[in-house]
Amino acid sequence: MELHDFRYDGTGSFDLSRYPTSARMDKQERPRIEEAMQANIERMAELQDRLYADGREGVIILFQAMDAAGKDSTIKRVMSGLNPQGVTVCSFKQPTHEELAHDYLWRAITHLPRRGYIGLYNRSYYEDVLTVRVHQMQTGYKMPARCKDLDEETFFTQRYRQIRDFERYLWENGYRLLKVMLNVGLDEQRKRFLERIDNPAKNWKFSASDLAERKLWPQHMKAFEQAIGATATPEAPWYVIPADQKWHARYLVSQAVVEVLEACDPHYPTVSEEQRAKLQQCREELTL
Amino acid sequence: MELHDFRYDGTGSFDLSRYPTSARMDKQERPRIEEAMQANIERMAELQDRLYADGREGVIILFQAMDAAGKDSTIKRVMSGLNPQGVTVCSFKQPTHEELAHDYLWRAITHLPRRGYIGLYNRSYYEDVLTVRVHQMQTGYKMPARCKDLDEETFFTQRYRQIRDFERYLWENGYRLLKVMLNVGLDEQRKRFLERIDNPAKNWKFSASDLAERKLWPQHMKAFEQAIGATATPEAPWYVIPADQKWHARYLVSQAVVEVLEACDPHYPTVSEEQRAKLQQCREELTL
Repeated sequence: MELHDFRYDGTGSFDLSRYPTSARMDKQERPRIEEAMQANIERMAELQDRLYADGREGVIILFQAMDAAGKDSTIKRVMSGLNPQGVTVCSFKQPTHEELAHDYLWRAITHLPRRGYIGLYNRSYYEDVLTVRVHQMQTGYKMPARCKDLDEETFFTQRYRQIRDFERYLWENGYRLLKVMLNVGLDEQRKRFLERIDNPAKNWKFSASDLAERKLWPQHMKAFEQAIGATATPEAPWYVIPADQKWHARYLVSQAVVEVLEACDPHYPTVSEEQRAKLQQCREELTL
Repeated sequence: MELHDFRYDGTGSFDLSRYPTSARMDKQERPRIEEAMQANIERMAELQDRLYADGREGVIILFQAMDAAGKDSTIKRVMSGLNPQGVTVCSFKQPTHEELAHDYLWRAITHLPRRGYIGLYNRSYYEDVLTVRVHQMQTGYKMPARCKDLDEETFFTQRYRQIRDFERYLWENGYRLLKVMLNVGLDEQRKRFLERIDNPAKNWKFSASDLAERKLWPQHMKAFEQAIGATATPEAPWYVIPADQKWHARYLVSQAVVEVLEACDPHYPTVSEEQRAKLQQCREELTL
């Protein structure tokens, strides 16, 4: 199975259960896959350097997933080869009072990378149609009646449309978006939670409330299915990456990043005749 | 002529030449009008206090106009009665490097007021379909070909649609928008420029480049007509305020502000039975 098997761009209906949580790669493949990932990471660094110099296009890479699916470790392992000077990271934790006092896209937009940069979103505005939908948090919003006194279906259908509009706007204004769901299985999550409980160095990553979310697994999967189904487009596709085998998931993510950077086709700015003459002049001044 | 005569909400086609630059009010009306404005300013302060306490809705008031139409003085004279604690002001000057490296709505969004606040935009993202269109600045943008290598009509039609989408999104997320064009006449602008040149205290407001823009008056009017025609909706209407008589223009603006604040229908938060009991308890503790 290759990356394109996990890509959904809105063509046909979206059935999350058809996307495996594991590609069941043979363990013997691991060294080959890790080598391929290393090559991707080097390619990413090269492309990022040109993206930054070029400055015409920005790239946003967002990650959504259940707990312990590997968001943090994927960012760490796949993105560590990038030059931090051209990268911004925004972690979408519990919204602050200031964030809650604005529209729900505000937080993502204020953290939008410049064109020429790569912006990583660890969770994103999709929380506002995932966690918010599962817990029906919209009913508690401080908003006028016209905005919140809608039935659930109407409210979220409106948000999906708002998100499509926003992402089309980004596309039309020099941004490319890579949307990644790290698709972990229920049983694999259980193993990783146990590891977080048993390993003192990982205790800080676990909270008792994580178990409450786990009990809502079917609701979460339904919210993912609805959100991905309604917001995938050819310009802003979703990648539903099987995440049970971390080493394979990371490779797939690195492959998706290389592909989006290559699609940008970044070039070092070219120098005009006039600028070239000026450069020569400067050269002479330095060698007098 | 009353305020609603200058309101355009997208119903029927928009012909800027049908909107007068002066309502030709008799000078004798001035004291009565200024009294009415003073009453509006007091009403605004009262409504703002409730808007702030309520916190469910935010109000954005944006001003677009030719130079010397009275944007600064309208803000000063109409808004000075507001509590600065609940007001933000954003002046859209020459965009910074950082702003130019983002999409064109980014600047407006990062300065979006909280809900409960009034945000004043002195110029706005409409510059990106007005000045930018008049000077064809989009051709010089650092953006990928898909975003900028479009013919003028396609490019700006797309921007109008993006702005409609954005303003609908704001409406759906707890914001009301008041869009004001201060419609000054060519001859009145000439008088005001002369005053800026002759009065040393006003010299700083004049720049020789203002004359260059003045020479492009028909192009500017056309850009206004196209932009207003394409972006006025019942939820985000335009007010094309005759601006040759400043005292009357200010009154009309104050009236529009009162109306938008009244439409918010802000209320002081009510206290539940439980909270009331708690308040009584605190009362007793303070009077022991």
